[in-house]
Amino acid sequence: MRTTFHLTSGDEDHQKTVLTIAENLSKDETVEMDDIAVVAQAEGIDPLTQGGTHSDTVASLLDAGLSFKACSNTLDTMDLAEGDLVEGVEKVSSGAGELTRLQEDGYAYVRP
Amino acid sequence: MRTTFHLTSGDEDHQKTVLTIAENLSKDETVEMDDIAVVAQAEGIDPLTQGGTHSDTVASLLDAGLSFKACSNTLDTMDLAEGDLVEGVEKVSSGAGELTRLQEDGYAYVRP
Amino acid sequence: MRTTFHLTSGDEDHQKTVLTIAENLSKDETVEMDDIAVVAQAEGIDPLTQGGTHSDTVASLLDAGLSFKACSNTLDTMDLAEGDLVEGVEKVSSGAGELTRLQEDGYAYVRP
Repeated sequence: MRTTFHLTSGDEDHQKTVLTIAENLSKDETVEMDDIAVVAQAEGIDPLTQGGTHSDTVASLLDAGLSFKACSNTLDTMDLAEGDLVEGVEKVSSGAGELTRLQEDGYAYVRP
Repeated sequence: MRTTFHLTSGDEDHQKTVLTIAENLSKDETVEMDDIAVVAQAEGIDPLTQGGTHSDTVASLLDAGLSFKACSNTLDTMDLAEGDLVEGVEKVSSGAGELTRLQEDGYAYVRP
Repeated sequence: MRTTFHLTSGDEDHQKTVLTIAENLSKDETVEMDDIAVVAQAEGIDPLTQGGTHSDTVASLLDAGLSFKACSNTLDTMDLAEGDLVEGVEKVSSGAGELTRLQEDGYAYVRP
């Protein structure tokens, strides 16, 4: 099964909760996960940027096999370049566009 | 592809973010969208009402081809009539009922 | 049709809104619902616990045929036992795991 998480909140505690819930899913042995993709946009982008508050957690989850996708509209608006992202984070056309594609492709959607 | 956005927040900045993300999807040339429908309920109804803080944006997005749907339970609770809605906004039986129908019909769901 | 609601907020007004929207769906005669399942986790768990602020509403909705599911990771983190839950609430492996299973099984997802 495949699931996408939607990360839009600028609240650091909330961001941590989203990342923890994604990690818990990867450790839930009752569901066989083929992919877990976190799509971040708007104020939710910070953890995916180098030096972002929870960027270490993002790097660790990337190592564990989760994927992270950053909305390019948000990068433009916040004057961020791809080089500002944590290594391994993918840039996508738009947050909602990617979420639409993923759900069309069979991903479940979770927005904590 | 088709996508429905869920708008429930009473926070004006958050409402603006939802509308901007919906607009960005309509402009994302990497996804071919057949419909983008914003379903509003609870405190998220305000932008869909005449004189609401972001009602001009809603009117402009309606002109651009997006659809907007207002939960009739919310209208009843807030003592609003259909005539109080921005022209072109559709009244639906209930927010969650409409979101269920739309997803059953193949729409992706996005709740920023 | 079947719908799952995702309850993660610790805000009591927000929790009440989620429960009201779920109840409204059960009363919406334009959609034939076979199941309405509320999955709670993180700070959203409180209404599902005995003595929780909206636990009476949860008990009443359980009586009305809705189902409620509590994330076991959250129970562990908050040092809660199954016996602390409102009678009839089901414990599930993880919130996101259950939401993935339900959507895989055709449930719509609503996160007010």
